[in-house]
Amino acid sequence: MGRENLSFVLEKQGIVKFEDRPIPKLASPYDVLVNVKFTGICGSDVHYWQHGAIGSFIVKAPMVLGHESSGIITEVGDKVTSVKVGDRVAMEPGIPCRRCVRCKDGKYNLCIDMRFAATPPIDGTLAKYYTLPEDFCYKLPDSVSLEEGALMEPLAVGVHITRQANIQPGQNVVVFGSGPVGLLCCAVAKAYGANKIVAVDINEERLKFAKSYAATDVVVSQRESAPDSAARIIRDCDLGHGADVAIDASGAEPCIQAGIHVLRTGGTYVQAGMGKSDIMFPIGAMGAKELNVKGSFRYSSGDYATAVGLVTSGRVNVKELISNKVKFTDAETAFNDVKAAKGIKTLIEGVEDSA
Amino acid sequence: MGRENLSFVLEKQGIVKFEDRPIPKLASPYDVLVNVKFTGICGSDVHYWQHGAIGSFIVKAPMVLGHESSGIITEVGDKVTSVKVGDRVAMEPGIPCRRCVRCKDGKYNLCIDMRFAATPPIDGTLAKYYTLPEDFCYKLPDSVSLEEGALMEPLAVGVHITRQANIQPGQNVVVFGSGPVGLLCCAVAKAYGANKIVAVDINEERLKFAKSYAATDVVVSQRESAPDSAARIIRDCDLGHGADVAIDASGAEPCIQAGIHVLRTGGTYVQAGMGKSDIMFPIGAMGAKELNVKGSFRYSSGDYATAVGLVTSGRVNVKELISNKVKFTDAETAFNDVKAAKGIKTLIEGVEDSA
Amino acid sequence: MGRENLSFVLEKQGIVKFEDRPIPKLASPYDVLVNVKFTGICGSDVHYWQHGAIGSFIVKAPMVLGHESSGIITEVGDKVTSVKVGDRVAMEPGIPCRRCVRCKDGKYNLCIDMRFAATPPIDGTLAKYYTLPEDFCYKLPDSVSLEEGALMEPLAVGVHITRQANIQPGQNVVVFGSGPVGLLCCAVAKAYGANKIVAVDINEERLKFAKSYAATDVVVSQRESAPDSAARIIRDCDLGHGADVAIDASGAEPCIQAGIHVLRTGGTYVQAGMGKSDIMFPIGAMGAKELNVKGSFRYSSGDYATAVGLVTSGRVNVKELISNKVKFTDAETAFNDVKAAKGIKTLIEGVEDSA
Amino acid sequence: MGRENLSFVLEKQGIVKFEDRPIPKLASPYDVLVNVKFTGICGSDVHYWQHGAIGSFIVKAPMVLGHESSGIITEVGDKVTSVKVGDRVAMEPGIPCRRCVRCKDGKYNLCIDMRFAATPPIDGTLAKYYTLPEDFCYKLPDSVSLEEGALMEPLAVGVHITRQANIQPGQNVVVFGSGPVGLLCCAVAKAYGANKIVAVDINEERLKFAKSYAATDVVVSQRESAPDSAARIIRDCDLGHGADVAIDASGAEPCIQAGIHVLRTGGTYVQAGMGKSDIMFPIGAMGAKELNVKGSFRYSSGDYATAVGLVTSGRVNVKELISNKVKFTDAETAFNDVKAAKGIKTLIEGVEDSA
Repeated sequence: MGRENLSFVLEKQGIVKFEDRPIPKLASPYDVLVNVKFTGICGSDVHYWQHGAIGSFIVKAPMVLGHESSGIITEVGDKVTSVKVGDRVAMEPGIPCRRCVRCKDGKYNLCIDMRFAATPPIDGTLAKYYTLPEDFCYKLPDSVSLEEGALMEPLAVGVHITRQANIQPGQNVVVFGSGPVGLLCCAVAKAYGANKIVAVDINEERLKFAKSYAATDVVVSQRESAPDSAARIIRDCDLGHGADVAIDASGAEPCIQAGIHVLRTGGTYVQAGMGKSDIMFPIGAMGAKELNVKGSFRYSSGDYATAVGLVTSGRVNVKELISNKVKFTDAETAFNDVKAAKGIKTLIEGVEDSA
Repeated sequence: MGRENLSFVLEKQGIVKFEDRPIPKLASPYDVLVNVKFTGICGSDVHYWQHGAIGSFIVKAPMVLGHESSGIITEVGDKVTSVKVGDRVAMEPGIPCRRCVRCKDGKYNLCIDMRFAATPPIDGTLAKYYTLPEDFCYKLPDSVSLEEGALMEPLAVGVHITRQANIQPGQNVVVFGSGPVGLLCCAVAKAYGANKIVAVDINEERLKFAKSYAATDVVVSQRESAPDSAARIIRDCDLGHGADVAIDASGAEPCIQAGIHVLRTGGTYVQAGMGKSDIMFPIGAMGAKELNVKGSFRYSSGDYATAVGLVTSGRVNVKELISNKVKFTDAETAFNDVKAAKGIKTLIEGVEDSA
Repeated sequence: MGRENLSFVLEKQGIVKFEDRPIPKLASPYDVLVNVKFTGICGSDVHYWQHGAIGSFIVKAPMVLGHESSGIITEVGDKVTSVKVGDRVAMEPGIPCRRCVRCKDGKYNLCIDMRFAATPPIDGTLAKYYTLPEDFCYKLPDSVSLEEGALMEPLAVGVHITRQANIQPGQNVVVFGSGPVGLLCCAVAKAYGANKIVAVDINEERLKFAKSYAATDVVVSQRESAPDSAARIIRDCDLGHGADVAIDASGAEPCIQAGIHVLRTGGTYVQAGMGKSDIMFPIGAMGAKELNVKGSFRYSSGDYATAVGLVTSGRVNVKELISNKVKFTDAETAFNDVKAAKGIKTLIEGVEDSA
Repeated sequence: MGRENLSFVLEKQGIVKFEDRPIPKLASPYDVLVNVKFTGICGSDVHYWQHGAIGSFIVKAPMVLGHESSGIITEVGDKVTSVKVGDRVAMEPGIPCRRCVRCKDGKYNLCIDMRFAATPPIDGTLAKYYTLPEDFCYKLPDSVSLEEGALMEPLAVGVHITRQANIQPGQNVVVFGSGPVGLLCCAVAKAYGANKIVAVDINEERLKFAKSYAATDVVVSQRESAPDSAARIIRDCDLGHGADVAIDASGAEPCIQAGIHVLRTGGTYVQAGMGKSDIMFPIGAMGAKELNVKGSFRYSSGDYATAVGLVTSGRVNVKELISNKVKFTDAETAFNDVKAAKGIKTLIEGVEDSA
């Protein structure tokens, strides 16, 4: 099977299948065709599979899944100059319109006409071949593997969160949630010279890994009020008048609340995790401490390049996060792994050439 | 009565009285003594009177009330160079420690050792004489009256909110709440070149004033969901993909929620009003639109000077907000006016010389 | 003559001619065709005419001149949604690649592959018809004339300079040079709430106009050292420890030097004028005062829209700058006017329909 | 000799002597007394010795030299809370007025009433005892030696320069001059995640050290035009369209010029070195590339704390820069070393207790 362009398709909520689709044509002279080699799976992929929708994005027609990929370029358009056939690249999966006010202002992640892989109705990267513009391909140096290349996507998420947080060298940072994104936020904060990096999670195994990976301190979440939780973190980690930066990578209501309370006056909070759309929020504390509270949505100009640079220079290690690799034809296993929170990051290999 | 330094004192929750206190001594060679001439009353003064506390600030001993004042300098310390006896000044009521990290970072409003007039245990300005450092006195030009000088305090609040909002010329701004602070936010936004300035309130009388004062559009709040309310504001005021800036000067939960929903991707929200300490908050929308959500606490370096400049140049009119003036000995009337939401701003005159 | 697309062409250095060229085709479904109605002439147009080059940009083949234009849309591509046939628009004359790092970072004016009207080898707008993407057309409201529309280009230059200068309300600004760009910098600074706006020029007539137009103070340049000149401006205009912002819109070496010396510690200087490529520069004063010195190159995201907004709201008056209008067939007259520094801004009308 | 407070005094230009002065009294309850243990010597100390002045700062009366010091606290004022007798501290040598606009704006290094050690008429730190406010003392952790503590001053200079340069992770930086400040700029740039760090100097020995210390690339200055020099650096170091950041830590005219030419469009240049007050400067290139050119003056809020943090965490090694240590009574030797450019940094030990 899959002589042309074998793809892993979400037929509809709960139902996935393999399908041989036509190899995509280059739509512009600036486009390239990539033979996809590794794809990571994240919570949003699983969410579409399980629920058929995320917020207002609803799967109304069969859609190829996957958006955390790396691969090898097999064809380039006439005007392509930055990459060539054979180059190993990380693939940035969201292509903005380049024309709206947000794009021209330098925030293409906020583009209203964004076409993002595996966000309905746009097909994802879990296929043998995928086409995208050259400027969304990031060449991997010889020292960086294609497996690591697939991890550039969650790392770019972490880079963007950290940029939103505007972490300065010497600052103290608390990161709630020690899943892949939370761990990568710790690693990027470390690379940027943060002083204390406190990982908070409910799962002690994860915290053990976080400590060995990038956190300087770890705190186990407990059932207690958010102010009490924050006070405990501040006291146990010796954070003085409070942390400079708090990042929520959990999406959990108690973490969000504690994140606001854990900050010093004038501190910065970044919401990275996704959970309930409306929660109880300590708006009074936010106002009285004059906090900066920010969303963080995907990644924007420079984030992918920074991610590749961090791995190339050895400042961030993404290899340690790869807990499993499966064949393309076992893609569903990877989804089940993520659903079961098994391991940290499962990669799906590309379609085999013989396939 | 009041031969020395007649003062209006909050004895304890609910009980105010006049008391003749000693004239304060200059504590530093950089201090001045001011004969207070006009004092405005705001919600926080009334809150201390009614409840004896705001958050963790509790009235444990008798405290002079008032913090929105202007006056005439009657004595200056040895090292004072910027003002002289006889100068008419607006008085900035919060004196920071000048030594902590926040002070040295340029955000003295976040100073942990701030001494703020009429915030327990610091005495306020409702007295015949008040002492403060010269650099917290702002000379009024001849064209600006002492009545206007007393309004510099709420205007500085509005200047600081607008600075937090980082309003750029041409942007569209929605301001929830048309009390004194909301109105002044509209006026400052206008002075800074905002395009549309939408005032939202439940009270049609206030909106009528807002429209005549500084708003370009007004919207009456209705009972409806926050997304519906936001959609209605966007549609009725032709705000395209949403407002660039939303300011809540109401403290009301439905306004806060609508303020988040009314913004475009990447927009900025500032929490200026004070209400419940915890509310239901659309954190999902904040994240997906990558908003900037900020507190705004009092005012900091430059805000008072900017306020005086805006009034001096005629860009902001504060006279129109003065709805009543009462004698010092009728101070309690002013508190009752504010409690009853009567008029916009009531001023209390200084202690008469014969008094 | 000119039945198709009469154009005003720079044949080679010093030689201009009229030429009937084909009407351009829309190159993309996002493009529109504009019937050009008014075109202003600026120093750079004249410089190409006189010298055949500006820096590394050399006229090697015949090139249509002109880049400050407004017109009426006569054709739109299939995907155009923001404008329609018959719309009156200001035309932004530089189209960036939208793909390079600078473009994606939000600074498309720094795009290395910029295609800018009347910068070799790209043809300019002095033709009956001109094609450009819809997002570089800015619809003029009914209250704004097409003549004013042509002035949006120099106003956008002023908006960008002022943005580089980061002028805050209440600041004191010194603008060297009272040509069109200097005058518009004064006007924008005023619109943004600057306190003192000091115009400096060698020509007293121009200063008289500057004072009536937007400057609060004017200073006649004299033969003296730069520190003396700066000291005189500070003293005569009562600028305390120095100006907050200095803008050079003259390109003259003595002005640049005085601009550095006139600033307070931490002040901002913007180089807008073009003159000698290398000059004597007070680098010691720049370092000791920790100044911010910035270039300003054309305009970028938001500047044109801001320009249209400033004129629409009446904050900036561009009509007063129009000193002469000539027929298209008299285009060379306009170039001679600018060369002779006659008037402030000469407009060339569009090709007449009968032509 | 020196039973009380032996001090190393610049009598007048060219003449130094030892003098026993009274132990200073604490001038404020927030002050501490420090027994000085190590003091580094920098070019400005030598300049006062050799020339009796730097710019407008003229030595008119005998003045104690030295400002790069560490020591042990021997007395604390009544209100001191952050340090105690016996604490080992780095001493920040400039005390701002805390009251002017610049101080309150968060830029105390630009304070006009700054009192800076060994800048006339303020005495320096080359004495047995020195007094300063507690908030200008930075406690050294056990892992950091007092020798390293004396190096915090030049490191804070490097931290401030790098902050002015706003170096982002992944950027390419060129640093002109490989003296102590240039080397520390390289080290801080590395700690902040810069990609390429190119050291440029005329001295190959220094470059060899720079390469082993923190630079990724080194370039030997040659006699050539500034554009040629810049083109060679870009080509040899593979900097694409130019460096993101250039720092001049040499003060040499050819380096300043090359620093402007070596940058990409929109790049940032920081002037750190001091040399001639006026030089030939490529203002045309600065404008056309829309560069950000900044001074950097001493250090401000947060810089010293960041410096201590960088050394504590092992991100910056200052020990390697200490090339010599001399007894207090041999202080003049250290000055001669610096004058002769011998070694990198010579430290002077504190006055011996028996002395």
